[in-house]
Amino acid sequence: MRKIVLTGAAGNLGMQLREMLSGLAAELLSTDIADAPAELLPNETWVKADLAEMGQIAPLMEGADMVVHFGAIVDEKPFEELLGPNYIGAYNVWEAAHRAGCRRVIYASSIHAVGMEDTNAGVPCNGAHRPDTFYGLAKCFAEDMGRMYWEKRGLEAVCIRILTCEPAPNNLRALGTWLSYGDLRRLVMASIKAPVTGFTTIFGVSANTRCPVDNSPASFLGYRPQDDAEDWAERIEATAKQPDAQDMGLTKLGGPFAKVPLGESGVDAIRRMTEGKA
Amino acid sequence: MRKIVLTGAAGNLGMQLREMLSGLAAELLSTDIADAPAELLPNETWVKADLAEMGQIAPLMEGADMVVHFGAIVDEKPFEELLGPNYIGAYNVWEAAHRAGCRRVIYASSIHAVGMEDTNAGVPCNGAHRPDTFYGLAKCFAEDMGRMYWEKRGLEAVCIRILTCEPAPNNLRALGTWLSYGDLRRLVMASIKAPVTGFTTIFGVSANTRCPVDNSPASFLGYRPQDDAEDWAERIEATAKQPDAQDMGLTKLGGPFAKVPLGESGVDAIRRMTEGKA
Amino acid sequence: MRKIVLTGAAGNLGMQLREMLSGLAAELLSTDIADAPAELLPNETWVKADLAEMGQIAPLMEGADMVVHFGAIVDEKPFEELLGPNYIGAYNVWEAAHRAGCRRVIYASSIHAVGMEDTNAGVPCNGAHRPDTFYGLAKCFAEDMGRMYWEKRGLEAVCIRILTCEPAPNNLRALGTWLSYGDLRRLVMASIKAPVTGFTTIFGVSANTRCPVDNSPASFLGYRPQDDAEDWAERIEATAKQPDAQDMGLTKLGGPFAKVPLGESGVDAIRRMTEGKA
Amino acid sequence: MRKIVLTGAAGNLGMQLREMLSGLAAELLSTDIADAPAELLPNETWVKADLAEMGQIAPLMEGADMVVHFGAIVDEKPFEELLGPNYIGAYNVWEAAHRAGCRRVIYASSIHAVGMEDTNAGVPCNGAHRPDTFYGLAKCFAEDMGRMYWEKRGLEAVCIRILTCEPAPNNLRALGTWLSYGDLRRLVMASIKAPVTGFTTIFGVSANTRCPVDNSPASFLGYRPQDDAEDWAERIEATAKQPDAQDMGLTKLGGPFAKVPLGESGVDAIRRMTEGKA
Amino acid sequence: MRKIVLTGAAGNLGMQLREMLSGLAAELLSTDIADAPAELLPNETWVKADLAEMGQIAPLMEGADMVVHFGAIVDEKPFEELLGPNYIGAYNVWEAAHRAGCRRVIYASSIHAVGMEDTNAGVPCNGAHRPDTFYGLAKCFAEDMGRMYWEKRGLEAVCIRILTCEPAPNNLRALGTWLSYGDLRRLVMASIKAPVTGFTTIFGVSANTRCPVDNSPASFLGYRPQDDAEDWAERIEATAKQPDAQDMGLTKLGGPFAKVPLGESGVDAIRRMTEGKA
Amino acid sequence: MRKIVLTGAAGNLGMQLREMLSGLAAELLSTDIADAPAELLPNETWVKADLAEMGQIAPLMEGADMVVHFGAIVDEKPFEELLGPNYIGAYNVWEAAHRAGCRRVIYASSIHAVGMEDTNAGVPCNGAHRPDTFYGLAKCFAEDMGRMYWEKRGLEAVCIRILTCEPAPNNLRALGTWLSYGDLRRLVMASIKAPVTGFTTIFGVSANTRCPVDNSPASFLGYRPQDDAEDWAERIEATAKQPDAQDMGLTKLGGPFAKVPLGESGVDAIRRMTEGKA
Repeated sequence: MRKIVLTGAAGNLGMQLREMLSGLAAELLSTDIADAPAELLPNETWVKADLAEMGQIAPLMEGADMVVHFGAIVDEKPFEELLGPNYIGAYNVWEAAHRAGCRRVIYASSIHAVGMEDTNAGVPCNGAHRPDTFYGLAKCFAEDMGRMYWEKRGLEAVCIRILTCEPAPNNLRALGTWLSYGDLRRLVMASIKAPVTGFTTIFGVSANTRCPVDNSPASFLGYRPQDDAEDWAERIEATAKQPDAQDMGLTKLGGPFAKVPLGESGVDAIRRMTEGKA
Repeated sequence: MRKIVLTGAAGNLGMQLREMLSGLAAELLSTDIADAPAELLPNETWVKADLAEMGQIAPLMEGADMVVHFGAIVDEKPFEELLGPNYIGAYNVWEAAHRAGCRRVIYASSIHAVGMEDTNAGVPCNGAHRPDTFYGLAKCFAEDMGRMYWEKRGLEAVCIRILTCEPAPNNLRALGTWLSYGDLRRLVMASIKAPVTGFTTIFGVSANTRCPVDNSPASFLGYRPQDDAEDWAERIEATAKQPDAQDMGLTKLGGPFAKVPLGESGVDAIRRMTEGKA
Repeated sequence: MRKIVLTGAAGNLGMQLREMLSGLAAELLSTDIADAPAELLPNETWVKADLAEMGQIAPLMEGADMVVHFGAIVDEKPFEELLGPNYIGAYNVWEAAHRAGCRRVIYASSIHAVGMEDTNAGVPCNGAHRPDTFYGLAKCFAEDMGRMYWEKRGLEAVCIRILTCEPAPNNLRALGTWLSYGDLRRLVMASIKAPVTGFTTIFGVSANTRCPVDNSPASFLGYRPQDDAEDWAERIEATAKQPDAQDMGLTKLGGPFAKVPLGESGVDAIRRMTEGKA
Repeated sequence: MRKIVLTGAAGNLGMQLREMLSGLAAELLSTDIADAPAELLPNETWVKADLAEMGQIAPLMEGADMVVHFGAIVDEKPFEELLGPNYIGAYNVWEAAHRAGCRRVIYASSIHAVGMEDTNAGVPCNGAHRPDTFYGLAKCFAEDMGRMYWEKRGLEAVCIRILTCEPAPNNLRALGTWLSYGDLRRLVMASIKAPVTGFTTIFGVSANTRCPVDNSPASFLGYRPQDDAEDWAERIEATAKQPDAQDMGLTKLGGPFAKVPLGESGVDAIRRMTEGKA
Repeated sequence: MRKIVLTGAAGNLGMQLREMLSGLAAELLSTDIADAPAELLPNETWVKADLAEMGQIAPLMEGADMVVHFGAIVDEKPFEELLGPNYIGAYNVWEAAHRAGCRRVIYASSIHAVGMEDTNAGVPCNGAHRPDTFYGLAKCFAEDMGRMYWEKRGLEAVCIRILTCEPAPNNLRALGTWLSYGDLRRLVMASIKAPVTGFTTIFGVSANTRCPVDNSPASFLGYRPQDDAEDWAERIEATAKQPDAQDMGLTKLGGPFAKVPLGESGVDAIRRMTEGKA
Repeated sequence: MRKIVLTGAAGNLGMQLREMLSGLAAELLSTDIADAPAELLPNETWVKADLAEMGQIAPLMEGADMVVHFGAIVDEKPFEELLGPNYIGAYNVWEAAHRAGCRRVIYASSIHAVGMEDTNAGVPCNGAHRPDTFYGLAKCFAEDMGRMYWEKRGLEAVCIRILTCEPAPNNLRALGTWLSYGDLRRLVMASIKAPVTGFTTIFGVSANTRCPVDNSPASFLGYRPQDDAEDWAERIEATAKQPDAQDMGLTKLGGPFAKVPLGESGVDAIRRMTEGKA
């Protein structure tokens, strides 16, 4: 492969992907609205750019085979704040990729596209949308757009509905929803290496004993997670309190995002939950 | 009812609704980006406003019970042109309605939210999205948002996926997809009068003999269409040519929108089809 | 037909069925825990009996071809009060019918077997149970038993999930859920006349414009309702207040039963709703 | 339309279609293994031909727009006897139609393609196969082939799963399964006139009150039956005996075909049933 | 946790759970209609009580966090014999748990709630009921009740549909249906430890190579079985005879219960099957 | 077991099964249209026979318990060439097995019975047909026939829809579709040893990381594959070119068969794909 573009390269997850991606193509173009890190990889170029500006995004795609689109504000905010990076940004990426003749977009979608679904329903990775936040709604928007770009223009997409991607699980919910950094890389790798993908959605989750979702419809992709949050179960359960039976932070797939008011930070809610304050 | 707000009041469909709506509430506030018509109804107020500007939209909602949201650009355009009125506009309406304590949004959604589905599949009115254009994608966005506002904030919504709303059917496709102005009014009326609706999607289509879609999941709404495009069948068939068997203008629910390139006018494509030139 | 047994013959619905049933068989045996009415039909016998007592029920079935089982307490009560007539009573009827070699049970089941389903979901007549009360739970019990008697013993059953059977609809909910007495008779008639039925469930509802449920899976039974609650719509809507959007008395199929506490009268709740006090 | 080919033209159903078809095209080519009737229609040509012989079938298709394929042995027989006309014959028709550039095959499929389904299940017209006889298996074969010719070669097909096509219903089962000759013509007409059909299956059944199957997935086709077997109900019920509750002649969609041994006449079984001898 | 109540503590399965449960709470209250075993665990109290008597059951629940309800007659019997312990008993447990403010019921449901399903259908753990016996019907009753208590009163429940829980598999059917004692404990443990469960049904079965059912909808619960009946396959197959192809003891999930007459012992039938006499 | 019949014994797959089958019965009767191999197994008899000739096939079944039917032309050909061995041959085998009182047919069906399904849809092993070739259509025919023989005559069948059975995977598609010879034997073994099977379809595929299909509905059969094509992934990916995103050889389950013209060799297409020429 000649060139891969990574958006959101300075984000927590983007940083986990750079090295792997640089090994998959002659050139890795990393972009973020943030400054480049101190050290770049040998074949890596860093371009500071605003996703919301087509004029800044379009040039990056030239000559690219695939785009790994992880750039976005990663929290619930008022719609107006997400509009640029999360909505228009997604459009800019797909449209620019199309114009440049890219083959495939690998997209950091989110569980929050279906966050209002019940945790105990075992929902499959190809069901209808049910967003829990403006953040999740942006994922719905991008997924529907991705399907359309495939059906109308032949641009492939793999939408990875990430659950909880952290160094380690650190609360009761994450025992089911954790995605380890290693498994994240495995899933992005599989999404890139698959010979054809058409339009595919898949949950980004590790092989957790308590995994609440069902990836079997996307089995062709060959994603085989290797980590299991259960290794942290004892430690987490030791200090966790039994939550209220109706706590939407656990009864709904979206967790705390499902219960925060629209426009208010879900990440703060997760932190509070982890600290046993919610 | 005290007050109903009608957006897109100067559009073809909005004009069909004004009189009926004025009879359902003490006050009808009609709004459009276009000027007011020469004559207003006795209890009607007209406010010229841009849907894309929250500052212009929010004040209109004060004291309103329901919003009938028909304002939008009604054709396929580049995303950038639809972003304001069709995307941000929908957000502004829902958000302003919520802030003002409105009870329900009746929304002019569209068949193009599922336009890539096969015509011969008999799709139900509550299935997943499959948009055919940026125009249809805006409907997907608004429907997902409407579901979220219901689930998170208790704002009801009826999303009417309109097929082909014209004075009369005038091509082969419309024999199945026609929605008469009378049936449009019946459907909006039912959507307003229903005591509760939660979040509901329903196809806006007349009782056509050849109707390709299935409204049975929304039967509680009590929409009973009375017109049938079949009355025009002989006339239309007399001059229509047998289309190509693979013509997506007929094999897909979205019709010509399903086959025009993204960003190019679907309305022109329909006109060409009607004139036998496509 | 030689003999039909009607249980609950003194109830509101039982009284509607007697004349019709007496015309379908040489003998009509009517039974109830209440006294016989002043006048019986020519071929009608009345036996006062307690459904909860097999010793009283079993003898009635001798020589019967079919049992129309409408006897039960028709309201929500504490489980202990329903146990005898509604649970054990149903068992006694099926078991006695089996022992006597009856061919078929026609059973007055109820919407409350699925009362926790959403009104706007368009649920079909053959779905899984979701009871809203102990009253509804008794219907679930009897339906599951009826299926078992068919699969293990070949005793046919038609379970009619009655919605709102009254002389006329008298509140907003009933505009969708009404079953006229005439349609009740048509449905029981069809259930009796069908050559074979196996185990079948069907909703007992008129041809209401706003009917919220779907009888198409039981179409073979040939039930064609003729009444429509819409004839009462104007009158009812004239005085009804817009209910709360979250009012389970309307958002759930079970109506007021869905929101009364377990064990408390749902009929009283319906009355309060009708009088605009709930 | 230039030319329509009708196979099985001398059969009971073929005879019902000739006049209508002759009005739809400049030329009607009727074919059967039987001799021509005494009188032909003005634009009708009759060719005696054996469906099992490609050499006789292929030339008939030249210049044809559509083929109405009703030719077959219309009863259960040993596989060896059906192989020629019902299996190879169907292949010959599709293959010859394809080679000649025909647009569409309208095929007399049969309820016996799903004859082992339960009558009280309300099966839809696009479900999987479940044949009851070698006769029904031939319909499964042809339907699967028809789907393949559409998906691989673009040859359209409408497969009409006929239930009971007779001048009038004459037994209990037919009260649900009857297809009047008028409705047969309406359905074939709709299948021909539909601008595009892709591959479509639909049940051939009148608007019977007791109709056991569900045509809603094929609603786009615009088939609207006008007859109802219920008009014969009283007369038929007057002399019919209550069948055994387990009688597969009624509990299964295929009726008597579902219970005759493979290879033995189902038509005889229907006759016996009608005469009250089975 | 302060207190767990275990019913049916003297039964085969109850005895397997006591030690584990005693380790999970400050107090274990074990109850059965049978006498206490010779030795109790340090924090265990034993109360002899009749499930059918609310007066005996209600006091046990005071202060309890969870109830593990395994008490019942564990065989098919006439309905009258099961009514007390299996039906009323289940009601008493749920109602008493609710009154005492318990959080969750873990219930020994059974495969016999769906015993008439085909073994080769791969049924999921959240499907509709299809009982094979009065014993299975009691499980249907309790499951429907459990769902209602959750939806109306917020009392959580995990219903474990146990297949064949024995020290070791000992017949052909058990090669698919076996639940080891270790896996039973793992499943009850997971049901207790899950932070929230709402209403959940799950099959109680080991990781058998030939496992006929599908637990994926309940994956969030984190039940990971470790045993596999296949270890016994050779031994069992060595002496087993090929059963009749229609033998409901194998073709139906309920096994011998599916074929015994209602009210007759299924356990005896299993024993006969194991001994090769059925 | 007394006797097993293996058809297609001289084929690639048949040769892999002979030794295993000879160990499962007192007598193995191997048959093929080809000559016997130089050496037979001790209890093996070889009969040269033409599947299309009932007179040659029927005698082979005498005294047989099970038939392992792998004989067929294993490539796409014109229908006329496949008619004898693949269609009539399948009929002859089932009919002869029935007449001889055999218990079960294990049939080499094929992925090409559903070859037009999308690779990224995760299709289950018991879905409807969607053949890609005349070769696949023959599998549809035999599967439907097998279901009918089970439902009408009680002859069991396991239809194994083989994907890609080769010594090793040798192209990108086979990384998902490979069935190792060892796993083939495991699957046939499980199909024979299962006490009852009724009519069952299952995909013949190894435990490939990228396996595109879902065997969970047939879990009772106890097939547990042990090989994974992923071991060959690096080697294959090293030389493979990225295929076109629309390449039906990968986007459709049928692979190259899905894109070859009807009647033309799919095996050649696979070879070309493997050699990077397609």
